[in-house]
Amino acid sequence: MAAPPDLERAILAQALAACGRHCAVLEPGEVWLVGAGPGDPKLLTLDALSALAQADVLVHDALIDPRILALAREGSQLHFAGKRAGHPSTPQGDINDELIDFARRGLRVVRLKGGDPFVFGRGAEEALALAAAGVPFRVVPGITAGLGGLASAGIPATHRGVNRAIIFATGHDPDDEGALDWHALARTGQPIVIYMGLRNLERIARALVEGGLSPDTPAAVISAATTPDQRILVSSLGGIAEAAHRAEPPAPALVVIGEIVPLRARLHGAEP
Amino acid sequence: MAAPPDLERAILAQALAACGRHCAVLEPGEVWLVGAGPGDPKLLTLDALSALAQADVLVHDALIDPRILALAREGSQLHFAGKRAGHPSTPQGDINDELIDFARRGLRVVRLKGGDPFVFGRGAEEALALAAAGVPFRVVPGITAGLGGLASAGIPATHRGVNRAIIFATGHDPDDEGALDWHALARTGQPIVIYMGLRNLERIARALVEGGLSPDTPAAVISAATTPDQRILVSSLGGIAEAAHRAEPPAPALVVIGEIVPLRARLHGAEP
Repeated sequence: MAAPPDLERAILAQALAACGRHCAVLEPGEVWLVGAGPGDPKLLTLDALSALAQADVLVHDALIDPRILALAREGSQLHFAGKRAGHPSTPQGDINDELIDFARRGLRVVRLKGGDPFVFGRGAEEALALAAAGVPFRVVPGITAGLGGLASAGIPATHRGVNRAIIFATGHDPDDEGALDWHALARTGQPIVIYMGLRNLERIARALVEGGLSPDTPAAVISAATTPDQRILVSSLGGIAEAAHRAEPPAPALVVIGEIVPLRARLHGAEP
Repeated sequence: MAAPPDLERAILAQALAACGRHCAVLEPGEVWLVGAGPGDPKLLTLDALSALAQADVLVHDALIDPRILALAREGSQLHFAGKRAGHPSTPQGDINDELIDFARRGLRVVRLKGGDPFVFGRGAEEALALAAAGVPFRVVPGITAGLGGLASAGIPATHRGVNRAIIFATGHDPDDEGALDWHALARTGQPIVIYMGLRNLERIARALVEGGLSPDTPAAVISAATTPDQRILVSSLGGIAEAAHRAEPPAPALVVIGEIVPLRARLHGAEP
């Protein structure tokens, strides 16, 4: 919805008040690992906006929303360093080396990552590499895709009487380590939000049923959350893999399993 | 750190670009449930700022940072509706009724909640009450205290080779429902972030050890995260309850348990 001019002026006044006293200065030679949130530009934090306003170089993944990249400071260099389906991806070690190299050349470096940099984004690996190299850095949290996506879909992450915990898990296949114990996750009886869960969804759903969850447990896929392409698919744990296979929802996609899913139907009617 | 004037101007330009096209209009008679994040005003989203800029009435909890309340639009009415230690708290039903009443009087209503409105904040109860009353509402996600607090403490929520899931749980005593199965959470082997966990920490820590976690599992308390009063206490699962009892960290406090905690020592040296 287009905001009227007096609203824009009021928001600018708030931004000035909030940032004038509190925003941090990105120094030359410093790297900020910045969470861009799930996609919608108005879910950027002021801290992330201040990063975009100061960056000499912006190192970003494929998943960053183009509406957010369009906010980069004029004159800042956009540097793509992510994975894109069907293209060879930049190895993580190369990304770490690039960040260190940019910083050592005295640039103000922003590493923009989808969601929150410390949630399934390999941000910790980048931070550890910077720390080991003696490069000063700062972490700016973002709205993680799981929570932003749930809110956008009208599914509460927690609700009294339904759950007292929520589990965020990655469905990405491990290459160099042990797999996640989905049976143990199932036995907690708490809702599970799976990032990057589409590819292995059939296997994961089967493991959760083996772990004791009923195939009737409500389940949903939220894809392209908070973007104009957002799609929501509601099914059951037993049916979600086939439903997702048929619907081919756009990436990135979250899978949500648990009794929080049906709350959407009770909330959805009243949402604008 | 005080931002220089040209940085402020640049941030305002970004805010205008991000919000001018995308920000939503809060209509009279509508309620927005808005996440204020963990405390630091620069962790507010643009969407939350636009809510502060438009509210006729701002209904807030005790935990909202005074630096954020100071950003309320001039002329908006501040309405306290939370729990404060030592004072009788407003019953949830009364808060729901107030929100509905304000909306029916044609006011633009912002319900400002610490962290994310859908994470252990009873936001779902308020949303369900609004939906049942036919009051139009919108949910604006915020940086949840768990993730904002971890980032501020230099503890990655996830790290490849350490964990493939993370559990957010409430340590608040249930009154009208069953307790959380801490044994089952322990058996997942994944890190656990406990909101409101100080009061029952001794009992929770004992349950996690009974569930199979070693008493040597690293543990930390992060209190008053992202505020000037932030304090971090590092110990082990076996020692954290006594350490917290001695140190009396200020509320609100998060408890973090798992092998992500020691990553802080590797990251911390290089942080500005």
